[in-house]
Amino acid sequence: MSWPRDDAKLDRVRALMRERGLDALVVRAPDNVLYLTNFWGMKGYDAVVFPVEGEPALICLEPSREDAERTAWTTDIRLFGGYDEHDPRPPSLRALDLAAAVAAQYGAIGVELSLGTQAADRMVGEPTTFPKAWFDAFPRAQDATPLLNEARMIKTPQEIERMRLANAIAAAAMEHVQGLIRPGMTEAQIAAAWLGFVHGEGTGWAGAVELALGFALVWSGAGIKTFTATTNRPVVEGEPTLFEIWVCADGYWCDHTKNLVPGELSERYRELEQGLLGVYDDAVAFCVPGASLAELDRRVRAGIASLGFPGQPSHPVCHGVGARAHEPPYAHQAGGGEIREGMVLAIEPGCYWEGGGGLRVEDNYLITESGPERLCSFPDGVVQA
Amino acid sequence: MSWPRDDAKLDRVRALMRERGLDALVVRAPDNVLYLTNFWGMKGYDAVVFPVEGEPALICLEPSREDAERTAWTTDIRLFGGYDEHDPRPPSLRALDLAAAVAAQYGAIGVELSLGTQAADRMVGEPTTFPKAWFDAFPRAQDATPLLNEARMIKTPQEIERMRLANAIAAAAMEHVQGLIRPGMTEAQIAAAWLGFVHGEGTGWAGAVELALGFALVWSGAGIKTFTATTNRPVVEGEPTLFEIWVCADGYWCDHTKNLVPGELSERYRELEQGLLGVYDDAVAFCVPGASLAELDRRVRAGIASLGFPGQPSHPVCHGVGARAHEPPYAHQAGGGEIREGMVLAIEPGCYWEGGGGLRVEDNYLITESGPERLCSFPDGVVQA
Repeated sequence: MSWPRDDAKLDRVRALMRERGLDALVVRAPDNVLYLTNFWGMKGYDAVVFPVEGEPALICLEPSREDAERTAWTTDIRLFGGYDEHDPRPPSLRALDLAAAVAAQYGAIGVELSLGTQAADRMVGEPTTFPKAWFDAFPRAQDATPLLNEARMIKTPQEIERMRLANAIAAAAMEHVQGLIRPGMTEAQIAAAWLGFVHGEGTGWAGAVELALGFALVWSGAGIKTFTATTNRPVVEGEPTLFEIWVCADGYWCDHTKNLVPGELSERYRELEQGLLGVYDDAVAFCVPGASLAELDRRVRAGIASLGFPGQPSHPVCHGVGARAHEPPYAHQAGGGEIREGMVLAIEPGCYWEGGGGLRVEDNYLITESGPERLCSFPDGVVQA
Repeated sequence: MSWPRDDAKLDRVRALMRERGLDALVVRAPDNVLYLTNFWGMKGYDAVVFPVEGEPALICLEPSREDAERTAWTTDIRLFGGYDEHDPRPPSLRALDLAAAVAAQYGAIGVELSLGTQAADRMVGEPTTFPKAWFDAFPRAQDATPLLNEARMIKTPQEIERMRLANAIAAAAMEHVQGLIRPGMTEAQIAAAWLGFVHGEGTGWAGAVELALGFALVWSGAGIKTFTATTNRPVVEGEPTLFEIWVCADGYWCDHTKNLVPGELSERYRELEQGLLGVYDDAVAFCVPGASLAELDRRVRAGIASLGFPGQPSHPVCHGVGARAHEPPYAHQAGGGEIREGMVLAIEPGCYWEGGGGLRVEDNYLITESGPERLCSFPDGVVQA
């Protein structure tokens, strides 16, 4: 959807560039291109040269010209071909040539030197990545990643509006699946129903979402683990079916863990749910401006240890969400940082039994002056189907 | 699924390593990790150190240990944590530390210096990518990408068996959608139905597929373009609904373009279909061992020009498929190479009207001694729904 230029966001980036003496950023991760231009690449070949003053240059795959003209916050669109009859190299190297040529007019450049994770492009499935030639083309570049991380941690009103759309689609898809889940269906069939709702009904959502994509891992009963794939294991009566779910709505994300149970939840799971929700509620209440991220991590892990799961979980328990499902800040006991107003945090304590089974709960919270606001309307804990 | 170790594949890689004097490869793209170990990473943090002799070391995210022990073709599995209480860095840097430590025992190392595109991990949605630190850790490395490209171009019997599974799932999903497509449904709803079948029914397919993922772009009528996203535009009666579709079955892919039409195809489209199928059939017949890839590109583009679309299409018309939807070889008039027995090629001529509408057809062909064998059973052209 063609959102108005988010000047609050771009001004913050430019202020951080001035602090670091940077004349331009050259970025290519799809989420950073979207963050700076509102253009979400089809295949991830695209790039942007974002100067501290003046119009950014969007380096754009030629077949995406119409999309870029309609959605991008710049009129300076430089096209490269997906196929070039004189050039058998991959398109990414033509994009690099253009980016380097545009960047040559600037002195101090920032490049994503330390980015380890990027968001999907619109095609998904075959992400483009940084070749060594990308870094070699900017030998004196500073690392733009810490700057972009810092800017992205604090959301603007437009970003929050966009994330609310993703959250609303995720909730509606959960309600859809709540109505159809039955014991004996497979994890993959349930995942497909959730994913289908997100893409099929979320695309066009409220007249405000041009493209909605869902990503899901669904595990049932003993299939619940820290991190593994959806299988054709059947949905179990009386035990949770866990949904690790992300929605991306035009480049803005949510990241939840929700649980459904067909039938009556077993006593063992009811106890686990109550214990885990206690840890979770305590963590959420802790998330006020000024609170320590390291202390949050310690606090959640101490709570989980007290439930009988010392050393768990082997995944982060709190991270930022925005133009990617996971982004800084991360709560880490050996790290620093504090919770600030305008952050959106995913809080996700989990604990898992040896051999299979366990529980995780997760929603996204906007940190306001008066405390955390939950962004998804679908309940936490294990919800009866 | 736990496939037997594909020694024909690994021996070919080792022979190419000997030719180039390489003692070990250090790779981290999910498709190359899968190619060399059969382990498909959950998040793409994993890596492999693959020596020219002896057991490869799989550097593996700790929560994936069971998956790796079950599926990987190596017993040397080195784990790193998704969360490490003493180390607030992202997991990818712990993987890099391990990879560098294992690689230190080898002399000449190959690293994916020029890879620009990788396959999705099993979680999809948030691909991991190469940070500069990855390349810096192996300062004297040769580029492993050309070697891996060369090995991957020729498929082993096991690889072909795996690709047939992906092709069968894609065909069944097309038949499923053929039965339900109606004018007025949106492109996104149709895409969701196709995607849902692939994931929901393809996972567990024939007892031989552990995880099936689909990726689709669906465009109808005037929505058909070279390359754009699925929208909430309605399916049009009498005009094609085009499916740009990929299936990944446990790490092996297919890449097709299929078309359905509810009602009678318009005369204008029928003419276009007949012309394009003529170009396509000619291209397929050309694909015998020894044929020139450059000549194939020229031939297809000349045929499309003769239909009234000079300079089209702005995408490649032929590429390899295997452990990724797109991989070498590419047919390019300014490139080299010839078609060889054991390649699997996607052939995809397309032409597009100014302002919207057009057609593309595509299937995957195994090149045999006696010519090309089509891998997908769903018909080409525009199929009546």
